[in-house]
Amino acid sequence: MAGGGGGGGGPAARAVLQRCVRASLQVKPADELSEARFVQIDRGMVIYICFFKGATEDILPKMVSTLLNLRLCESDSGKMVSVLELPGSLLIIPQATLGGKAKGRGMQYHSNISKEDGLRLYSAFVALCEKELTAAAAAAGSQVTMKHGTYGNRQVLKLDTNGPYTHLMEF
Amino acid sequence: MAGGGGGGGGPAARAVLQRCVRASLQVKPADELSEARFVQIDRGMVIYICFFKGATEDILPKMVSTLLNLRLCESDSGKMVSVLELPGSLLIIPQATLGGKAKGRGMQYHSNISKEDGLRLYSAFVALCEKELTAAAAAAGSQVTMKHGTYGNRQVLKLDTNGPYTHLMEF
Repeated sequence: MAGGGGGGGGPAARAVLQRCVRASLQVKPADELSEARFVQIDRGMVIYICFFKGATEDILPKMVSTLLNLRLCESDSGKMVSVLELPGSLLIIPQATLGGKAKGRGMQYHSNISKEDGLRLYSAFVALCEKELTAAAAAAGSQVTMKHGTYGNRQVLKLDTNGPYTHLMEF
Repeated sequence: MAGGGGGGGGPAARAVLQRCVRASLQVKPADELSEARFVQIDRGMVIYICFFKGATEDILPKMVSTLLNLRLCESDSGKMVSVLELPGSLLIIPQATLGGKAKGRGMQYHSNISKEDGLRLYSAFVALCEKELTAAAAAAGSQVTMKHGTYGNRQVLKLDTNGPYTHLMEF
């Protein structure tokens, strides 16, 4: 994995990638006035993402380029292609728990970025992914979807896979 | 994270943990003679597990104890408890892709344990988890389920979460 830009020699960002044939995520819980709202994608990739202290926007272009160009998806003919080449849909899920370290029986999140900086980086990450995926889909003449979770919300997720093919990437 | 016993200073094992309210995994694909077979759990935890070169059975007792005693689950009253305390069900999924490293746009798995050694460790890991969970459930007078995937198979997974609450642990 690439060397990190985070403090203390650790990574600046951590991502877990899973393939899906369908995924849905609650982006707004139900309240007295309205039902819960969900976003959904079909075939493509789910990216769970967490930023650490010391992460800056500088890392985003390389990070997005790496994640979206890795050959982790399977084409109809069984060839390994990237989500951009497929082209597949993308669901991005902010997942601060990925930054946890065990201390005794509990988890601590002391290395995680602050909420304000995390939201800023997360939003920029989502915008960059959207730009890349939209361009790839337009070039391929395909329709794909990019959806994302809400920073700070509980991420109620349903995932349907043909093999999650889970990968870890650090930057 | 705990210091690893693997070769080259890396970890000996990597686990990704997710909470679920239901999860089902195909353990045998359909063939001409029979339909696909699935295992299913309700509320509990999914453990994706990967062993690296140099991993030995010595690491398993501490690893299982750590994973099953971490307070990653939510009780009915909203308190954080371990899967043993809940007690919840457990789905263990062998996931060799977790050992991947990006090389250019492809993934390489050179640090992964051999298939034979991996199967042996995976089987011992599953047996230890089953022993701990069964003892905890008996002590609590509860019924819980432990299921696991088949080493070497494609892990067709459906995951239904109330927040995946994804954590990474290395040993």
